Amino acid sequence: MRKDPPILQPSNNGNRYELTSPTAMPKAGGFLWNQKMMIQITCRGYATAQFMQPEPAKYAYAPNIEARTFMQPEPNYYSHHPGRFVYIKDLETGQLFSAPHEPVRAKPDRFVFSVGKSDVAWAVEHMGIRVEMVMGLPTADVAELWTIKVTNISGRPRRISVTPYFPIGYMSWMNQSAEWNPELVGVVASCVTPYQKATEYFKNKYLKDKTYFLCETRPDSWDASQQAFEGEGGLHNPSALQEAQLTGSDARYETPTAAVQYRLALEANEEREYRFMFGPAYDNDEIRTMRSRYLSKQAFVRTADEYAVYMERGRGCLRIETPDKELDNFVNNWLPRQVYYHGDVNRLTTDPQTRNYLQDNMGMNYIKPEVARKSFITAISQQEANGAMPDGILLAEGAELKYINQIPHTDHCVWLPVTLDVYLNETGDYSLLKERVRTENGDNFTVFERFSRAMDFLLELRDERGLSYIAQGDWCDPMNMVGYKGKGVSGWLTLATAYAVNLWAGVCEHEGATDLAKHFRAGAEHCNAAANEHLWDGDWFARGITDDNVKFGIKKDPEGRIWLNPQTFAMLGGGANQKQIARILQQVDSQLSTPYGVLMFSPPFTKMREDVGRVTQKAIGSAENGAVYNHAGVFYIYSLYKLGNQQDRAYTHLRQLLPGPNEADYRQRGQLPIFLPNYYRGGWREWPRTAGRSSQLFNTGTVSWAYRCVIEGLCGLSGDAEGLVIRPQLPSGWNAIKVTREFRGATFHLDIRRGLVKDVTVRMGERVLPEPRITGIKAGQTYQLSVVVPQ
Amino acid sequence: MRKDPPILQPSNNGNRYELTSPTAMPKAGGFLWNQKMMIQITCRGYATAQFMQPEPAKYAYAPNIEARTFMQPEPNYYSHHPGRFVYIKDLETGQLFSAPHEPVRAKPDRFVFSVGKSDVAWAVEHMGIRVEMVMGLPTADVAELWTIKVTNISGRPRRISVTPYFPIGYMSWMNQSAEWNPELVGVVASCVTPYQKATEYFKNKYLKDKTYFLCETRPDSWDASQQAFEGEGGLHNPSALQEAQLTGSDARYETPTAAVQYRLALEANEEREYRFMFGPAYDNDEIRTMRSRYLSKQAFVRTADEYAVYMERGRGCLRIETPDKELDNFVNNWLPRQVYYHGDVNRLTTDPQTRNYLQDNMGMNYIKPEVARKSFITAISQQEANGAMPDGILLAEGAELKYINQIPHTDHCVWLPVTLDVYLNETGDYSLLKERVRTENGDNFTVFERFSRAMDFLLELRDERGLSYIAQGDWCDPMNMVGYKGKGVSGWLTLATAYAVNLWAGVCEHEGATDLAKHFRAGAEHCNAAANEHLWDGDWFARGITDDNVKFGIKKDPEGRIWLNPQTFAMLGGGANQKQIARILQQVDSQLSTPYGVLMFSPPFTKMREDVGRVTQKAIGSAENGAVYNHAGVFYIYSLYKLGNQQDRAYTHLRQLLPGPNEADYRQRGQLPIFLPNYYRGGWREWPRTAGRSSQLFNTGTVSWAYRCVIEGLCGLSGDAEGLVIRPQLPSGWNAIKVTREFRGATFHLDIRRGLVKDVTVRMGERVLPEPRITGIKAGQTYQLSVVVPQ
Repeated sequence: MRKDPPILQPSNNGNRYELTSPTAMPKAGGFLWNQKMMIQITCRGYATAQFMQPEPAKYAYAPNIEARTFMQPEPNYYSHHPGRFVYIKDLETGQLFSAPHEPVRAKPDRFVFSVGKSDVAWAVEHMGIRVEMVMGLPTADVAELWTIKVTNISGRPRRISVTPYFPIGYMSWMNQSAEWNPELVGVVASCVTPYQKATEYFKNKYLKDKTYFLCETRPDSWDASQQAFEGEGGLHNPSALQEAQLTGSDARYETPTAAVQYRLALEANEEREYRFMFGPAYDNDEIRTMRSRYLSKQAFVRTADEYAVYMERGRGCLRIETPDKELDNFVNNWLPRQVYYHGDVNRLTTDPQTRNYLQDNMGMNYIKPEVARKSFITAISQQEANGAMPDGILLAEGAELKYINQIPHTDHCVWLPVTLDVYLNETGDYSLLKERVRTENGDNFTVFERFSRAMDFLLELRDERGLSYIAQGDWCDPMNMVGYKGKGVSGWLTLATAYAVNLWAGVCEHEGATDLAKHFRAGAEHCNAAANEHLWDGDWFARGITDDNVKFGIKKDPEGRIWLNPQTFAMLGGGANQKQIARILQQVDSQLSTPYGVLMFSPPFTKMREDVGRVTQKAIGSAENGAVYNHAGVFYIYSLYKLGNQQDRAYTHLRQLLPGPNEADYRQRGQLPIFLPNYYRGGWREWPRTAGRSSQLFNTGTVSWAYRCVIEGLCGLSGDAEGLVIRPQLPSGWNAIKVTREFRGATFHLDIRRGLVKDVTVRMGERVLPEPRITGIKAGQTYQLSVVVPQ
Repeated sequence: MRKDPPILQPSNNGNRYELTSPTAMPKAGGFLWNQKMMIQITCRGYATAQFMQPEPAKYAYAPNIEARTFMQPEPNYYSHHPGRFVYIKDLETGQLFSAPHEPVRAKPDRFVFSVGKSDVAWAVEHMGIRVEMVMGLPTADVAELWTIKVTNISGRPRRISVTPYFPIGYMSWMNQSAEWNPELVGVVASCVTPYQKATEYFKNKYLKDKTYFLCETRPDSWDASQQAFEGEGGLHNPSALQEAQLTGSDARYETPTAAVQYRLALEANEEREYRFMFGPAYDNDEIRTMRSRYLSKQAFVRTADEYAVYMERGRGCLRIETPDKELDNFVNNWLPRQVYYHGDVNRLTTDPQTRNYLQDNMGMNYIKPEVARKSFITAISQQEANGAMPDGILLAEGAELKYINQIPHTDHCVWLPVTLDVYLNETGDYSLLKERVRTENGDNFTVFERFSRAMDFLLELRDERGLSYIAQGDWCDPMNMVGYKGKGVSGWLTLATAYAVNLWAGVCEHEGATDLAKHFRAGAEHCNAAANEHLWDGDWFARGITDDNVKFGIKKDPEGRIWLNPQTFAMLGGGANQKQIARILQQVDSQLSTPYGVLMFSPPFTKMREDVGRVTQKAIGSAENGAVYNHAGVFYIYSLYKLGNQQDRAYTHLRQLLPGPNEADYRQRGQLPIFLPNYYRGGWREWPRTAGRSSQLFNTGTVSWAYRCVIEGLCGLSGDAEGLVIRPQLPSGWNAIKVTREFRGATFHLDIRRGLVKDVTVRMGERVLPEPRITGIKAGQTYQLSVVVPQ
């Protein structure tokens, strides 16, 4: 009998080793190094290489970013990315597919991905089998509730296996394991969150370091190890699926996974329904509790009902019916949902940037004003002794300022009166200003006094020319090199300070603080005058002046020539006169407009400008490819509505925030019209292939402003201290819209159409109102209004 | 004509969106949230979920760890892991395979992975095509040099495409792109290393943020985008390979890749050879320079020759010929190479742990003693004013203590005399002690004085019982909770202090500092006495006593009952008497021995012990599965050799460091016998499936000690102040070995065999030496010695 040669042989006097199987020792590798680098490469071709510069660095990278960091735009998916999948195998033919689509990627006969406000669902048909998957969440627990239904639509009896595969992934280098738990009827994976300092142990001690995947119905077999499940077959054809049952393997410092298999014989049209739960837990007791609370048909129904009620609370204050059905749908269903998300959970952060926190809660004025009110108190209670606002608002005990919040920014105070404006408009509740708030440093002022101090801080934070210092950044977080030496100034911030301080002066006037109002009006004027003297470049305002006194964002700059934000805030805050506004609008149209919205700046930088810096925040990736940064864009839209005579420009850009309605646009953006992303790529001239692409990031200050633009701009339904002002701004193509607006507890039904009037005319019942404004509003009452706007 | 239904439809009054293609918008997803969590899930099944506790956390993880961190053990590979691959496609049949093995994973007809000291190579045959791949490195530049040869072995003409595919991966969230550069003939990928603080910009400014893949021969087509290359097909069958040529796509904030294609017609037996370069660069000028320096056949040959010379410099000081051919091969070829690696590049770190730095350089005594000498100066020049050594030694300007080096450890001074011992043995160069070294804090002492100060620091760092404080850890970095309150003590460190201080007393004696010697001998004795009084547990020494005065590592502990290191150092440092040693050896045999080496401790912890803590370092993952931590194991072996009568035990364990020689053992360990890993999993009783598995981590303090064990223990060839002592310790199964030893510039050929002698007898030519020791060694001379050892 011939003996197989050994798999491993030394050769060349032992100077080499030869391995003759790629599967016997799949991780076996060689390593080479030289004086500058090191590379370890396995027999199958995987490699890990490092060099020094001077810290260890890479030149070939893993495809994803797994480090814990802030949420990244334009995520890249790859075969082993976390996901929720079901393999279906025909036990007679051996054919395989997976739902929703990954990892097998078989071409489905029918595919429907159905995104609702309370669930996400699929129906996928292939090989005569229909797979329906539905995911829902409970309202206040961390768990996914999955229903997976399999139907034989082939018209003949079938034998198949159904294998839900929920990869758990690399949990921790400190320890990880997983195993089948027969009592809990599921896979339970465990890990230890890595730490090094002993003090961190106490911080981590009660973390939910377990991940469970529970089955309502006991499966026939299971796998808790990724390697055992996948094997040599790969995710498109896992080895474990080539056998009669899954391997039953545990994972011991191997990658945990959850795969469970049901083997079925299905008559024609027969269906089978399964329920699963997936989530984190502290220990098995918690898993047991979660199972008994949620994992049954009855509990799934009850939980879905509760969740729908929870979502309904975020339905917002506006229903519209316009000629633009896509817009109607977005504004009636999805925009308030996204606004609600921001105000409800603060983007799942413990240290939201102050400007984000204020603006996210600003949206809550249209949903739950009491939440917005509380957020002002929370924010202002963290005001510093000198009137400054911190870079982030801490929301949890032990929370710390992270990432960009450790970099000094100078604009946070601006957002106080800007967002308060909406609160006062929406509620008329000036009593907030009288609340007394004590900070940790012990000082004790009313909200009114604190806002005044913040405005004074803004006015003081200017140089001898009257221009606002930029430090390491201001809003949009770009331009990190302009002022790091302490001298550089921001054109935007100077003009935004004028806007904020002017708004605050208005509040002072309302409160009868006339001298203060004068003081702030004068401050705002001084800002605007300084901006005009030093930053007006003939057709637009410059973005700023560097530490070394170089003006930028001006005509002679080949890159970063014109920036949107200074122009917007010049229009909002009184910095630009009518002549200037006309020039600005023209320049924005010609230099910044794209089919996907208005660019943050243009032309895009192709390389670092050392005295100016680069956009350091989320939009950066696309910024060098031209960024339509929607948060900046929506402010421009808001400023257009504020002008009162720009409804067509405003509607055009408002509409660009939203993908569609034509299919080519959806595809180019790569996104469903269910949320506004924080950016679209804008380099339509430079990089047409990728222009318009969505960041896929639904965390964005854009949404509260977009809602405000629709409510106060397009529909023209803005509150004031005593009532509701009605000044719709229909785009010229529209003749009529219908609006339902909830406001201070009352409901307004408005029928708005064009007519032969000089100014907006409002009729309530038989009575024509003396001005387009309703006062004396009674909570609980319903108002029917006919509104005529000029043709 | 029937119109296709649109891919996207609102339904249920716009409360849902339905997408009917999984490919039209592959990233399109839905998102749900509740008060505790958020999940974004794409139409294809990929999901990103986060919850708060209180910081954002995950329960389903990516399969890899891409965060920059210290090198991790037992790496997990997955389809998109960085690698170096070549696809071969038969253009007539469409059949596809890839070399080395990933990503297609076709079963090869022949596969040879050949690991040499200067290159790594493959020969893979499938579909009648042979692919030979060879990777080498230059000596002092960061670049991989690849030769890929394709031969038609099918005996008939063939048309194939050859597609090297070097994925570059996710480079940076700040910006990344890639494109074909016709002038450089290759793919050039660019990124911006992410940073947020302006100061970091200046640190990053000159980083090599480009990755290039250069072709000696211009390919027919190329892809610079991972998504374009892979497409719907997946890595096992990329879409781009289903077309007549690659897509030619650039990558714009998409994942960069390098794939190039050659289309060939090959006659029977015809071959084609290609050369490529892969590496990082600062700019295109640098890439151009690298290309002209390396990318040609001639340059490849020259570079390989230079590299071989470079490797030859690390060949070490020993050649053995024993009955154990695997050991011979490892000791003659691979062990010194691994020792050289550690001493040559310090594991590619800028802040090696002090104990690692000293021990890694200790190995260099056997290769380049001048490097070891210099390392003492470097290390001791960072001594603190109180005599302490820092947790890490900084090697580059701007380097910082990272990771575990930020955690206070108390053992670093121990390693000074322990490693100096080898330097003095090997060189006899006591002049090092007279060197004067000034530290940054300004004090100025000789090396001798500094070592004395370090020893005094060790002796002072003890409690009223005379036991050494452990702070947050000592060697092996485990047990982080024992002494964080400042009271807990370490049994190991107390005994290791005695060992270190005793060694130093010997040096003091040599230097004639008799009083100092007495002082240190007394200190060592005091340590040993304290250990015996407080820590001897009847059959072994306890591991320590916690802050709250709980002794652990003792008989009544159900987990972590016995620890190896205290026993080893009790034997080395005089803490254990002969009776105790006999008991210890028995307990190590019965409680700590496994087929894969000696456990660091036993039984493994199955959960956190709050007053003791957990192993926080590299070995952690396996530690909870039972860790054969080779660095601890090799010290035990060294202590056995020092006993002088334990050569069988010593050889048994020495041999276990190395996989093989039987195939089952190679497979179980999953590693080639070309390096010693830092650990093997040891839980052979608890977890037999995974026991023995290699960490795959070749960074380990084990290697210099393993080399020392072979040189000074097994071969018994240890230097002293005047010469070379000869006391071989052959295992009882061996009758003879041959050894060549280079020592102080001379070469010794030893023929060692058993004979009827009472003590080791050495004959040089005709002369029998009065004692087994050579003095008056002349550099450049060759000595032929016949050695007889007792039977």
